[in-house]
Amino acid sequence: MAAGNADRPAFRLDARDPGFRDAFVRLLAQKREVSVDVDEAVRDILADVAARGDAAVAELTARFDRVDVSGGRMRVSREEIEAAKAACRPEELEALALAWKRIQAYHARQKPQDETFTDAAGVTMGWRWTPIDAVGLYVPGGTASYPSSVLMNAAPARVAGVPRIVMAAPTPDGAVNPLVLAAADLAGVHEIYRIGGAQAIGALAYGTATIRPVYKIVGPGNAWVAAAKRRVFGTVGIDMIAGPSEVLVIADGHANPAWIAADLLAQAEHDAAAQCILITDSPALADAVEAAVAGQLKTLPRADIARASWRDNGAVILVPDLAQAAELANAIAPEHLEIETASAAELAAQVRNAGAIFLGAHTPEAVGDYVGGPNHVLPTARSARFSSGLGVLDFMKRTSILSCSTDALRALGPAAVALARSEGLEAHARSVAIRMNL
Amino acid sequence: MAAGNADRPAFRLDARDPGFRDAFVRLLAQKREVSVDVDEAVRDILADVAARGDAAVAELTARFDRVDVSGGRMRVSREEIEAAKAACRPEELEALALAWKRIQAYHARQKPQDETFTDAAGVTMGWRWTPIDAVGLYVPGGTASYPSSVLMNAAPARVAGVPRIVMAAPTPDGAVNPLVLAAADLAGVHEIYRIGGAQAIGALAYGTATIRPVYKIVGPGNAWVAAAKRRVFGTVGIDMIAGPSEVLVIADGHANPAWIAADLLAQAEHDAAAQCILITDSPALADAVEAAVAGQLKTLPRADIARASWRDNGAVILVPDLAQAAELANAIAPEHLEIETASAAELAAQVRNAGAIFLGAHTPEAVGDYVGGPNHVLPTARSARFSSGLGVLDFMKRTSILSCSTDALRALGPAAVALARSEGLEAHARSVAIRMNL
Repeated sequence: MAAGNADRPAFRLDARDPGFRDAFVRLLAQKREVSVDVDEAVRDILADVAARGDAAVAELTARFDRVDVSGGRMRVSREEIEAAKAACRPEELEALALAWKRIQAYHARQKPQDETFTDAAGVTMGWRWTPIDAVGLYVPGGTASYPSSVLMNAAPARVAGVPRIVMAAPTPDGAVNPLVLAAADLAGVHEIYRIGGAQAIGALAYGTATIRPVYKIVGPGNAWVAAAKRRVFGTVGIDMIAGPSEVLVIADGHANPAWIAADLLAQAEHDAAAQCILITDSPALADAVEAAVAGQLKTLPRADIARASWRDNGAVILVPDLAQAAELANAIAPEHLEIETASAAELAAQVRNAGAIFLGAHTPEAVGDYVGGPNHVLPTARSARFSSGLGVLDFMKRTSILSCSTDALRALGPAAVALARSEGLEAHARSVAIRMNL
Repeated sequence: MAAGNADRPAFRLDARDPGFRDAFVRLLAQKREVSVDVDEAVRDILADVAARGDAAVAELTARFDRVDVSGGRMRVSREEIEAAKAACRPEELEALALAWKRIQAYHARQKPQDETFTDAAGVTMGWRWTPIDAVGLYVPGGTASYPSSVLMNAAPARVAGVPRIVMAAPTPDGAVNPLVLAAADLAGVHEIYRIGGAQAIGALAYGTATIRPVYKIVGPGNAWVAAAKRRVFGTVGIDMIAGPSEVLVIADGHANPAWIAADLLAQAEHDAAAQCILITDSPALADAVEAAVAGQLKTLPRADIARASWRDNGAVILVPDLAQAAELANAIAPEHLEIETASAAELAAQVRNAGAIFLGAHTPEAVGDYVGGPNHVLPTARSARFSSGLGVLDFMKRTSILSCSTDALRALGPAAVALARSEGLEAHARSVAIRMNL
């Protein structure tokens, strides 16, 4: 049976076509997210939480989640955590433990080095890394409540040595995901609160009687959470504003079309706004992948979501030469890049802009989502052009250190004085000159 | 002559007083900046620049800066740069060259290492750092147009290997700071545009016919620039939202009060919103510093600004024991911390939250502003609790890499499938299972 037009991707491009560049620019410019303007409502919620603390959080949680967190019920108790762990299936807990071990081992290698050196002028300098004192980890409620994301957000914080990790996760209508609580416990999260939305971000940023403030907030969320994070940025640090997810697969004619179709659909099932792109130099593979996508969609539980993503945002791009695939990948700057070609490593070396690269036929992106080791919190929506996946450095800060000997100040002082005066900052100049009898 | 009440600091606290904690909290909570709400105007400017490009930028520049940048006059020409360099005094250019050499040498040590390793399961993984393809450097106009800041912003970008560094600097009424152009040229800035404000941020983020877009924008600016950076965050990366500057000096009774007063005033002369704090265990030093501040103010060119900062935001805090000074420093999280005590290094080791530390009597903060080596773009307004000074990593991004052998996928696959199914993501599970005949 043919693929059927209904399940074809939104874009089918050929780099040899005269109109290719324009079509590719349209693909890049595609607005995949309906922007929901909740900014004013979020501003009011944040102001309310800042002013009234726990009372505001409890009222808003009752209104939005239909859950009563008043009177000391905001924090998830040790008993609830133990009950949640008991409710998980053993194979899930084992898989979680394996994932945690591997993710920690990968991130342990990211711990930065301090540095101190003394140069020829007699200036001793360097820097020192220290963990952030307290961080908040936001975990969405409902179907986007992923235990794997708890591990991915907590692991770098733990490796960094953050002494206080606080989690906020809404429980709409009281629904708790036991594996999320089990993951938080495994990951050593210190406090868990059943709150969400902009009110949770406000509580974490400003603090309430129940929740002491944190200094940085990480984790994905809906439009309310994103708007709140943008607004509290400055009062606290934030990780990034997560957008819809995407995967780019670069494959040659030897790749298995069914495997690639499965990878595209794994991305597509997240969200209708997710984007799946295949770039290949093989027209036969392109056709076979399209057919396999259509075939696999038939039996997929989340077929409606995946189909919408593929039809609205999916793309298959034919290139005359795989070298061009790397160039297009740099323009797309995908969150996830799978390379299934004969010379995958060589092609990967040409890619500058990608959140994560998955090399070879036996590295489906989903293995990296859970148990590979690298972080799955990655820059989306082309932001891999300027940002990185979550890592240990996101939970640390660097203090620079400078120390001049008397001779060093004598050597450098005149230049500092000259530059300070050229900038009209006489008090700067004098603070140097007074130590040199200038 | 006594200091005179008029030139006393806003806060004089003693940690032994019963009301100290409350007063200290008030000091921390002090709103030092008048918040100017320009957000709606900025939103309109950004939309205009996005829609009309060069024409909008030229109109806005004519309106705000009274400068005509239409018809190809936006970019600063090579001839203008050479003329600017010729207009600088030789000792300024020499000081600039020394500063540039030292700043580059310090930042060269920040270049991160790539990593690749294969673990026991047969998974090869690691990461690779690459420079951002294009960055924008904003330089304010008028009196806050500092050549030293050009070097500090450009140096880490150069060390990172950024192939395209674009500078935007407004020239209100056509006023150009020749040393700023000389610094940009020395620092290897590739393109310079005489535009500023929200329109410059929009042009850098969205691109125009004249200016190709950049992927990250760094550098300080006024309320318009800050609001614009906050709004384009996501479309491009940004460094931080800079607030008013501050210095904390910790000194014991052996410190030279005149030198410390000079350091406090070097900070105070920046801005009436700047904050200067002295913490000491010596009442005599506290009194002597206050007197010295009052005395030095008499002859300072920017005395009005410095006096306003000291009177409105300055603080002198007496502690019974210098160990408490480190604790207070962590709460203050100062941008700049000077330590002039007998055991400066030991005290510094107790400090977790500070942008930069200046150790010993011969390390006035101003030497670090210009020629020390470390970056002077530092986290302000208590954000040293969660962020770092500008560095090479701010101009690079990390791509994670994962590659599974057939055996490795066989070892890890079942856990990935289990976790995917527990998250309700069947297509994720299938993309792994299809490769394992599960």
